[in-house]
Amino acid sequence: MGDDSWLRSDIGKSTPDTITVRGRNLATELMGQVTFTEMAFFLSAARMPSPGETRLFDAALVALADHGLTPSALAARLTWTGATESLQGAVASGLLGAGNVFLGVVDDTARFLAAILADPTEGAVERAVQAEIDAGRRIPGLGHPVHKVEDPRTPRLYAIADEAGIPIPHLTVLRTVAEVHAAATGKALPINGAGVAGAAFADLGLPPAVIRGFALLARTAGIVGHLAEEMEHPIGRQLWLDVEHRAAQE
Amino acid sequence: MGDDSWLRSDIGKSTPDTITVRGRNLATELMGQVTFTEMAFFLSAARMPSPGETRLFDAALVALADHGLTPSALAARLTWTGATESLQGAVASGLLGAGNVFLGVVDDTARFLAAILADPTEGAVERAVQAEIDAGRRIPGLGHPVHKVEDPRTPRLYAIADEAGIPIPHLTVLRTVAEVHAAATGKALPINGAGVAGAAFADLGLPPAVIRGFALLARTAGIVGHLAEEMEHPIGRQLWLDVEHRAAQE
Amino acid sequence: MGDDSWLRSDIGKSTPDTITVRGRNLATELMGQVTFTEMAFFLSAARMPSPGETRLFDAALVALADHGLTPSALAARLTWTGATESLQGAVASGLLGAGNVFLGVVDDTARFLAAILADPTEGAVERAVQAEIDAGRRIPGLGHPVHKVEDPRTPRLYAIADEAGIPIPHLTVLRTVAEVHAAATGKALPINGAGVAGAAFADLGLPPAVIRGFALLARTAGIVGHLAEEMEHPIGRQLWLDVEHRAAQE
Amino acid sequence: MGDDSWLRSDIGKSTPDTITVRGRNLATELMGQVTFTEMAFFLSAARMPSPGETRLFDAALVALADHGLTPSALAARLTWTGATESLQGAVASGLLGAGNVFLGVVDDTARFLAAILADPTEGAVERAVQAEIDAGRRIPGLGHPVHKVEDPRTPRLYAIADEAGIPIPHLTVLRTVAEVHAAATGKALPINGAGVAGAAFADLGLPPAVIRGFALLARTAGIVGHLAEEMEHPIGRQLWLDVEHRAAQE
Repeated sequence: MGDDSWLRSDIGKSTPDTITVRGRNLATELMGQVTFTEMAFFLSAARMPSPGETRLFDAALVALADHGLTPSALAARLTWTGATESLQGAVASGLLGAGNVFLGVVDDTARFLAAILADPTEGAVERAVQAEIDAGRRIPGLGHPVHKVEDPRTPRLYAIADEAGIPIPHLTVLRTVAEVHAAATGKALPINGAGVAGAAFADLGLPPAVIRGFALLARTAGIVGHLAEEMEHPIGRQLWLDVEHRAAQE
Repeated sequence: MGDDSWLRSDIGKSTPDTITVRGRNLATELMGQVTFTEMAFFLSAARMPSPGETRLFDAALVALADHGLTPSALAARLTWTGATESLQGAVASGLLGAGNVFLGVVDDTARFLAAILADPTEGAVERAVQAEIDAGRRIPGLGHPVHKVEDPRTPRLYAIADEAGIPIPHLTVLRTVAEVHAAATGKALPINGAGVAGAAFADLGLPPAVIRGFALLARTAGIVGHLAEEMEHPIGRQLWLDVEHRAAQE
Repeated sequence: MGDDSWLRSDIGKSTPDTITVRGRNLATELMGQVTFTEMAFFLSAARMPSPGETRLFDAALVALADHGLTPSALAARLTWTGATESLQGAVASGLLGAGNVFLGVVDDTARFLAAILADPTEGAVERAVQAEIDAGRRIPGLGHPVHKVEDPRTPRLYAIADEAGIPIPHLTVLRTVAEVHAAATGKALPINGAGVAGAAFADLGLPPAVIRGFALLARTAGIVGHLAEEMEHPIGRQLWLDVEHRAAQE
Repeated sequence: MGDDSWLRSDIGKSTPDTITVRGRNLATELMGQVTFTEMAFFLSAARMPSPGETRLFDAALVALADHGLTPSALAARLTWTGATESLQGAVASGLLGAGNVFLGVVDDTARFLAAILADPTEGAVERAVQAEIDAGRRIPGLGHPVHKVEDPRTPRLYAIADEAGIPIPHLTVLRTVAEVHAAATGKALPINGAGVAGAAFADLGLPPAVIRGFALLARTAGIVGHLAEEMEHPIGRQLWLDVEHRAAQE
């Protein structure tokens, strides 16, 4: 085959005596030394987060973990109804619905804010907001169908970010975006929880393309919770029969 | 529709001002107050873990998060190679390979140990081990293809469980199972990392059917890490071309 | 690399001028020469079906293609609601619910009948049926929640199999199984559509472990149909809001 | 519940005696009367294809069914290696890699051609091709990494379309697109198999958003074939060990 240098991964290696993850000994340097939150960050970012970063990362993951009986949670439960031999299938089914419509806000917001921060000229926020308005598009991270005045997660994550004492350029610009949008349209939209979490992930140095992965990680915890409840108190089968019954009415 | 009482979930509820998860206010009682590890436990178990339980749960999740270029990590990377529009598809693909062959050990071990603990008569371990030997089956949680003498995660998780100061009946029985198996067969097999994690999850009070969900949660962090690396340093496309090239040789 | 002989597939090969599938030239010997049904059979069975086999295979695939607003169809639609960038994710989500509870009947029936046919001694059907009754298990392929007297697909598939003029040992034994069960229990259960399709696939020489794959192929056509309808006349979002609204009532 | 009129599907309905699909009796009007190919078309298009349309549809599905050891086939096999309890998981994993990079060509081509056909002014092809060239983008449906001069599926599908005797505006424009592109760049690129199949699906009246669904249907047959071969002659586990071994070399 010639040169195999392309075939390498810095994530994990094993010998009979040791397991190494991103250069650290799993048993002695990671287990019992770092939380799962720190481990998740470390696996992707290839560096351990600071205590302040961990605090903000934990809060953003907690904020995104669950949103009740979402399409994603319902898909996971309905998949479990038909395939109880494979919990991984039900979890995967739930994650597959965590796409552009709902969870995409997380990385859309990160990308939108990164583009503004990459523009050093004055009026960058105003131009970016106006461009979305002119194109008839929503501003990523603004507005929520239920929390019309304020998303309760938003002020809380800003407070935690302040306490964490780390640089938060994306979060800061997001607040300006909301103000500029309100001034330009005369209509104040709240910063939503997905948007604020996306800005927080970006401030932690995670690339936009990877950010959705952390929203998926957070949501996995929620989906497992829904499946645990489904095993105790199933609703999938009854939901199916209810839908069939109602659809059959004329 | 008549009675809708079947259609309820205790996991999440929203009003314009508040989001409630398992009875707690998400913004004020969970964000910034609990780690993502505690949140994941809380979502499924409907109770907050104690500090000792959290320490053991964190360590078990960290132990299971990654195992290098496994079939599961390769499937996620190859899926990303063909479908970069959907990170959730690549993560889901990786989770779908976390099934009975590898990750099933986690809940198989929990079930095997729970059955022993449910048998109050003397000699329960000996009988259970002998039954597996007689049936020509492997003992769940024993043996590892690479770590033939000792899996480095195992003594570490036992040490963390001791420090945590919580009751660990499953972990304790697992050690006895290994000793009884060695005595019965004359061949000492190490307790593997998946087995010890399964026993730890069971000692945390998680039902066997849900335990695989936490192995999936841990693995999601690893898969996201692999996809983050794949974006920086792709191997999926080259692996495909390499396989095609070698398969075409006669 | 040493010996690469393990790394081969007889399914497909390409050169700059030709594509070969299972030894046949795709462009000149397959496209326009065989139907997709024959191609699907050929890809797995490595032989082309006879006209009679094709007729039975087509009918079994048609019988299994759709069952209305099943949990599987609902999961696909709800996944599409959240992730419109990835049709493959919605299709995959629908297939993940086609597991042991519903579609498993197809291969369970094939396995059950194959075990009976493998037993040359007299009374094999009676013993196999009685063993299931004694164990308190359902007989694979018998009974249907809606079609309590007769599943309309069953007599039709038997008639098509007769017309096809091919050996149908599994289908024949399935009829005996239903009679023996009725005699043993005094309760006549109809042969269901999944069971009769499973017996038909087995009579076509497909191994039980692969048979579920053809049920999945059939179901893919149905899921794509549901997603085509969902794009025209969406119900996923409204279903979600309806569920949330009803679950919020106390 | 108020008005349930939104909750309806025209695809399938059941009574104790009958199953109706898109208005036809499944047992008497579909099974034994139509092929699976016609059924798949009917489920999505809500009309039965003509014989000529069926011939073209069959040929396009056959053309797309398999491409050897693709990333998608490898992901399905590796998923099976880790999770043999769930064939649907392995099939789903394979489909998840059938995304924008490879299979997206099918609907990208359909969309590109539809936009040209929607423009009644002269020079529409030239302008559309030039716009892609100016933007530095590939023309959807042109070029192939292996079949650099001619993709053998392309002339064959054109011949079948001619024989079918149905209107083929998309296929006709695609040929012009290739000529215009060659004239504009001085570099002749072949029309690839995915592009020609996408144009054929569009000529059959299928909407671009649904077209990828038929590529997925075709690919499901190929993935099931790969999994059938994997059960007989596994390569997933050896591929994993081979990758781990090579990645561990320094």
